[in-house]
Order: sequence, then C-alpha cells, then structure tokens
Amino acid sequence: MITISILGAGKVAHHLILNILEQDNLTLQQVYARSKNKVNDLVSENQIITDINLLKPADIFIIAVSDDAIAEVSNAIPFDNAFVVHTSGTQSMDIIQKTNRKGVLYMLQTFSYDKEVDFSKMPFCLEAAKPTDFKLLDKIAICFSEKVYKISSEQRKVIHLAAVFVNNFTNHLCTLAEDICKKNSVPFDILKPLIAETAEKLQVLSPKEAQTGPAARKDIGTIDSHLQMLEGTNEKEIYQLITNSILNR
Amino acid sequence: MITISILGAGKVAHHLILNILEQDNLTLQQVYARSKNKVNDLVSENQIITDINLLKPADIFIIAVSDDAIAEVSNAIPFDNAFVVHTSGTQSMDIIQKTNRKGVLYMLQTFSYDKEVDFSKMPFCLEAAKPTDFKLLDKIAICFSEKVYKISSEQRKVIHLAAVFVNNFTNHLCTLAEDICKKNSVPFDILKPLIAETAEKLQVLSPKEAQTGPAARKDIGTIDSHLQMLEGTNEKEIYQLITNSILNR
Repeated sequence: MITISILGAGKVAHHLILNILEQDNLTLQQVYARSKNKVNDLVSENQIITDINLLKPADIFIIAVSDDAIAEVSNAIPFDNAFVVHTSGTQSMDIIQKTNRKGVLYMLQTFSYDKEVDFSKMPFCLEAAKPTDFKLLDKIAICFSEKVYKISSEQRKVIHLAAVFVNNFTNHLCTLAEDICKKNSVPFDILKPLIAETAEKLQVLSPKEAQTGPAARKDIGTIDSHLQMLEGTNEKEIYQLITNSILNR
Repeated sequence: MITISILGAGKVAHHLILNILEQDNLTLQQVYARSKNKVNDLVSENQIITDINLLKPADIFIIAVSDDAIAEVSNAIPFDNAFVVHTSGTQSMDIIQKTNRKGVLYMLQTFSYDKEVDFSKMPFCLEAAKPTDFKLLDKIAICFSEKVYKISSEQRKVIHLAAVFVNNFTNHLCTLAEDICKKNSVPFDILKPLIAETAEKLQVLSPKEAQTGPAARKDIGTIDSHLQMLEGTNEKEIYQLITNSILNR
C-alpha cells in the first residue's frame, strides 16, 4: 500500500484525488488546502488540513499548486527526507530544494472541473532524482495509465510548449469560431462533428497529411473573401498570420 | 430509386461516390472526370466519362470540383432543366446559371483520401431554389446522415469561415507543435491523447469553459519562458498573437 498526500486543491489536485480514491493499492493520506471548501466534497473532513505543519509522513507528497507556489509549498513540508514531486509542465525538478528525494509527475492533459478525464490513456511524464524514488513514482503512475514516460525537465518544457499549441491555442480558435457563429446567428453546434473529426484524423494521419482548406490549396479567392468578412474584427489578424504560415510551407 | 451523377474526381467526389454506392435507394449513374485514373478504383470503367457531353439524364447532378471550376462545369451540362447542385462551402448557389433548378449540398467535414469519414454524423447543409428540388436533396441527405440542415448561401459562408478556424487552423497549430517536438527530439505521439481530449471536451463544454493554459491563467512567467524557447522561429509570432487574444478576453 502506497500512502500519498496531495498538496493543493485546484483542478489537477481534484482529478488526482478522484483517481487515487479509485485505486486499491494507493491510500490518500491527507490533502493540504488553503481553504477546506474546495475539496470538501471529495474527501472526509479529517483528511483535509489547512496548516501544512499538520502533515503526517507519507510515501510521497504530490504538489499540485500554481507554478509560483511550488517552491514555497515544498519548503514548508515539515520533513527533511520526504519524497516530494510537483506536477508542473514548465518548472524544473530542481525548484524543489527542501529534499534530495525530488521528482515530477506531469500529466499531459487538460483538466476542467466539469469534465471527467480518462486517466488510463493519459501520458504520465515522470522524473526523479533518485532511481528508487523513480521506481515508486512509476509504480503509482502505472496504476493510473498505460502511457508512462521517463521525461527530463528539458524535454518536459518542450512537451508543455507543444501542448499549448495543440490544446490551449486550438481551443481558443474554437472560441473565435463560436464568436463568428454567434455574430451571424449560426449555431456553433453544427461545427462539433468537424471538431471531433479534426482530432480523430490526427490519431492516424500526421498534421501535414491531414491539412486541408483554402490556404493548403492556395485558394486566394476564398482567403480574400474570408478576410473581407473579418474586416474590422480581432480575428482578422489571426486569420492572416496562420494562413500565411500555411501558405509558406 | 434516385439516380445521381457526380461531376468531379477529387476528395469530396471520392467520399460521395463511396457512400452513394453503399445506399440501396441511390444509384450512381455516371462520374464525369477529367482523367479516368482518379476514380478507376471506385466505379466500373463504363460509368466514367471524360467528355461531359456523354452525360445521361439523372435526377440530380452533383458538382464536386474546385470553386473556380463550378461555373464552367455547370454551364457545360448538356441539359436545360436538370437539377444541379454544387458542394462548395463558399460559393453562392447562384454561381450555377445554366438552370433554375439549382442547389447546394455542402458537407461540413474535412476529407482526406487516406481516412474514411463517418457520413452518419456529418452535417449536411442543404439549399435549393425550388421546394420540390429541396425535398429531393433532403431525401438524399437523410440516406447518409442524421444531421441535415437547411442553410442559406449567406449562412454557409459563415459556417465555412468558422470551419477554417476549428479545422484548418487548429490542424496547422498541430503541425507547428510537431515541428517543435521534432526539433527537440521529443515524440509527437505523446500529444495525441491531449489532441483527442481537446476535441472531446468541446462536445460537452463551450470553448470558453474549456479554455486552460498559461494565457488563460495570466501566467506571464510561463509565457515569457515559452517566447524565449521560440526565439528566432516562425512560431513565435503566432504564439504571441494567440496568447494576446486569450489575455484580452
């Protein structure tokens, strides 16, 4: 039985807690949160602490807080030789300074409170300073997922940057598309099958093979007509820049 | 039994032909192609014509050629009162001038030769000048799909523009992400579950609700570090512009 304490109460902590509770060989020891409210509905009251000094020993402490707070929270853990990992895509493992037994458990996924995420297909990117700690981290990750990778801090930064493009930025383009639909009284829902197929296609084709559209076929007439439709909107500059990026390939 | 002739031999024609052949109450009459090679493997030799004057009468002629060629091809159809539709997202119905019995059958999807598409969930956007012709078009579309919409030429242009954002542009961002991965020797495959989840999330949450990432949480430190990593690359300008667009919401 592996005992785990979670430090943090945001979206990543929320989904981690939910999935730890489902595992027979993992025990959720404690959750440290600045306020009890946020995790109240997930765990029993006596497991939640708002004073970090009330932490009991555990096999691993997983820090799931905002990047700026990782250093402070890790320094405040009241044990000298605990195994402490963070869950950030961008921060180096060495931001944890309190202990030599440090590591990273980065889940490459997008989390929202209102949407369950299937942990079993989710890439877990692991790093640990000590081989024995890496083994423990690996043992935990394979409880959740079939996709467990050993990834260095440098590689993780690259993956996180690429993830911003494939997730955050593509999602924002869908926000702009929704704006365009709303402004013109067209239902955004009509685009949902296309959004689904765009992603499905990328499971079997490379993005280069999958590229279609006016820019890919150098259809300047359609591009000009789209730019006219976008005249005076914020979307025009984005349309122009991405179109040029496709045309220039 | 409805008889259909297809004019064109590109990706849209290819997928249309495949799906017409699967329907019991639709008959593929003829395929007009500039060269026989492209559709040879789909239909028997005697169904393919390369001279448009060899077209036999059919209940409907579906033009699936590039936007610039629609007017020319529709004018060359050797019948005066035939029902002729095109499949373009951007062109008005009235680009067809040879007949008053005109319409549009626009399939809101992205087509590649190497990827089968599920027609049953695909939005069919229909338009016809005459109510009786609309009925026929509707009868054909519901053979293929549960999602059939009556959409005007104006609405269709808006939908096509929004589709460029959710499909062509998001796909290109994935191309850029693949470049970033390759340059840094990280496997692009690790991002595929995230790409899938990004689209799945948008089936149940609005893009605004689904938005996460450094820009959404105004994490300027991470944004600066990403911009540094992209220094000197084409991706930097796109990163900056989309990030600003998210920050400004």
